[in-house]
Amino acid sequence: MAGLGTVGGGVVKLLSEHKDLLAQRAGRPIVLAGVSALVVPKTLEAQLKGVPFHQDARKLAVSGDIDVMVELIGGAEGIAKQIAEATLGAGKSLVTANKALIAKHGVALARLALEKGVSLQFEASVAGGIPILKAIREGLAANQFTRVYGILNGTCNFILTGMEQSKRDFADVLAEAQKLGYAEADPAADVDGHDAANKLAILTSLAFGTPVSLESIYVEGIRNVSAIDIAFAEELGYRIKLLAIARRTEHGLEQRVHPCMVDRETPVAQVMGVLNAVVAEGDYVGRTVFEGPGAGEKPTASAVVADLLDIARGRTSPPFAVPVSQLAPMRAASMEDHFGAYYVRLIVVDVPGVLAEVAQIFAAEEVSIESVLQRGRAPGENVALILTTHECREAAMMRVRARLEKLKAVVEKPAFIRIEEL
Amino acid sequence: MAGLGTVGGGVVKLLSEHKDLLAQRAGRPIVLAGVSALVVPKTLEAQLKGVPFHQDARKLAVSGDIDVMVELIGGAEGIAKQIAEATLGAGKSLVTANKALIAKHGVALARLALEKGVSLQFEASVAGGIPILKAIREGLAANQFTRVYGILNGTCNFILTGMEQSKRDFADVLAEAQKLGYAEADPAADVDGHDAANKLAILTSLAFGTPVSLESIYVEGIRNVSAIDIAFAEELGYRIKLLAIARRTEHGLEQRVHPCMVDRETPVAQVMGVLNAVVAEGDYVGRTVFEGPGAGEKPTASAVVADLLDIARGRTSPPFAVPVSQLAPMRAASMEDHFGAYYVRLIVVDVPGVLAEVAQIFAAEEVSIESVLQRGRAPGENVALILTTHECREAAMMRVRARLEKLKAVVEKPAFIRIEEL
Repeated sequence: MAGLGTVGGGVVKLLSEHKDLLAQRAGRPIVLAGVSALVVPKTLEAQLKGVPFHQDARKLAVSGDIDVMVELIGGAEGIAKQIAEATLGAGKSLVTANKALIAKHGVALARLALEKGVSLQFEASVAGGIPILKAIREGLAANQFTRVYGILNGTCNFILTGMEQSKRDFADVLAEAQKLGYAEADPAADVDGHDAANKLAILTSLAFGTPVSLESIYVEGIRNVSAIDIAFAEELGYRIKLLAIARRTEHGLEQRVHPCMVDRETPVAQVMGVLNAVVAEGDYVGRTVFEGPGAGEKPTASAVVADLLDIARGRTSPPFAVPVSQLAPMRAASMEDHFGAYYVRLIVVDVPGVLAEVAQIFAAEEVSIESVLQRGRAPGENVALILTTHECREAAMMRVRARLEKLKAVVEKPAFIRIEEL
Repeated sequence: MAGLGTVGGGVVKLLSEHKDLLAQRAGRPIVLAGVSALVVPKTLEAQLKGVPFHQDARKLAVSGDIDVMVELIGGAEGIAKQIAEATLGAGKSLVTANKALIAKHGVALARLALEKGVSLQFEASVAGGIPILKAIREGLAANQFTRVYGILNGTCNFILTGMEQSKRDFADVLAEAQKLGYAEADPAADVDGHDAANKLAILTSLAFGTPVSLESIYVEGIRNVSAIDIAFAEELGYRIKLLAIARRTEHGLEQRVHPCMVDRETPVAQVMGVLNAVVAEGDYVGRTVFEGPGAGEKPTASAVVADLLDIARGRTSPPFAVPVSQLAPMRAASMEDHFGAYYVRLIVVDVPGVLAEVAQIFAAEEVSIESVLQRGRAPGENVALILTTHECREAAMMRVRARLEKLKAVVEKPAFIRIEEL
């Protein structure tokens, strides 16, 4: 094993605590044959007694003492990638929790694993403890998937939940999340949607049999979601969630990560706090929902060790459900062709004629308004004007947006949030 | 394949419609090499063209033409059991959707499969299209499970949902369910909880590594749930669900199927209509929730074919997660030792002193009352008196029950519903 951070520590503890149970379920003992890390935490001293320590993880990976390497360092490049290549190249199986590595180099690594006849497993890389990759690759493998989507970033879900429950703003709840350890000091990877995009890229490849394609994903984070939008969402019967969505459409494969208004009665709307959830829609099974802890020491360790059990039992699959040579690129749908409904929030000066001006812009672009909400009157002052639309092409909506932004009466950058039909 | 009823028809259609996709995911073509059924539905004629028909499924099972037998006839005994034994005995793998067969003879069949070195798979027997057995046996296999529970009978969930939404009584909604095909003409297996008990027995064995023990399960159906209890549940912040629960306790393994009051905010409370859901709680992963269609032609076919894909790919596991010789019986906890809270609904004559009499009985048995609800006053007439208790031993509660039933002012059989802490 390389890396003794949070997840590595959890795996060490799990292997030690459940030694007998795991031997029974694996059909053989699972022995930690060597570790490598920058620092060995004091808390793991007991469990690591007698386990050889290696200065260089790349040497450990190719050592004759091991059958499987567990990479828990992270990062798409550098040492993690070197370990992965060394391990598979040496004809040993690899287990990793590294979403960035798989989203970027997964196909190349799967090709190497196939050549060498070894396993490449990465259940922990998506949705932490939820065994969603196994479900899509094996449990639901009889289906043609039509859509796969979910809440894949616990930090964002924690922040959105906190904003709703305490009616505070983004920055305020982010600071709380950082204090609680649910958000990093530099929160960009989480709150800007990149972490969710990495995970979506992997999910998409498994579900649709297409090579991982991170660059095809439209990504928009939650920084611009404001307390006022969350309040209006509630009033309209919605809740705002950061969803990662992959969907087969007539224009190709849509892959997108962005804040969505979702009906409060749907399963993903009920997923609160740091939890993750994935919804897989198959043509035979219909809609299946998987919910659970998406991160953390113990849930992630659960997923890493499940991969080890699969390898120990000889249960192998192509990492992306079909052999890497059979992955077939699909045309990426452009966001301009996205067809859906929208929530629009304008802050306008309350003067006569504003609503007519706004409505005229929607009409000119043939975007049909579904509802309008304006709370109270405040002549001459700023008020919120909320509109929701019927389904339309995103290209039309973007033209509406550009024109609204130029209106004199619109005094703040308007907010646009897609309404997702689930 | 033996049996061309609803599920069999779905499997035939799936194998035909997704032939290429399945060959890709299985790594080889999956060919329907023979069928046996009492009647061959006209709707399957196209798909079954050229597929040899066998009068006797037991002969098909041992024929040299097949690698795997798919048993979709049903029933714990008779032809289904004979087919299963003949198949495994002949050294061929068996896939079945037959919960009654597995709940009764699963361990013996698993022993036979182990002896012959073949697979026995039954994903479709529990929770239809939800790949929950795979999740427990493989995806969450690194965990010691503390509790596994769920909504395992779609008919009961449909009825309870209907009763709540339309404020009708059990008999009324049952009749509707029968008309819609969601309940059988003889609804006993569903509404009396036996179907859910069969499924729970299988789940328990996989999660706790213990032999299937149907006879250890406490079973109570939903016939006695009344519209008035559903209304009061709502008022108290609960919803009534038929849950199947397996839990490790200090008194041994609890296995029970009965109506429960569950907090409306919990995931299982949100599962409406014919859907199923399973919650698996593991010591490392925490709480994971799996939701989806629990029955029906297409979802069940999805699960049956997933089992075929596992066999085709050579992904095998012991059917009950550990080899059958290692299944370890656990002491069954007695319901008397069940420790939990209760909802009690009394119909009493509204005369002075009734509440004091009732409260005195709870006090005498040291059952502590948590809340009392009585709507309006109707001197001399019948009114509902609702009590909820703090957690207590079921034995004490049963003594309270016996004494309440003898009270003169109590004019109907009291209702007792367990409140489940989820």
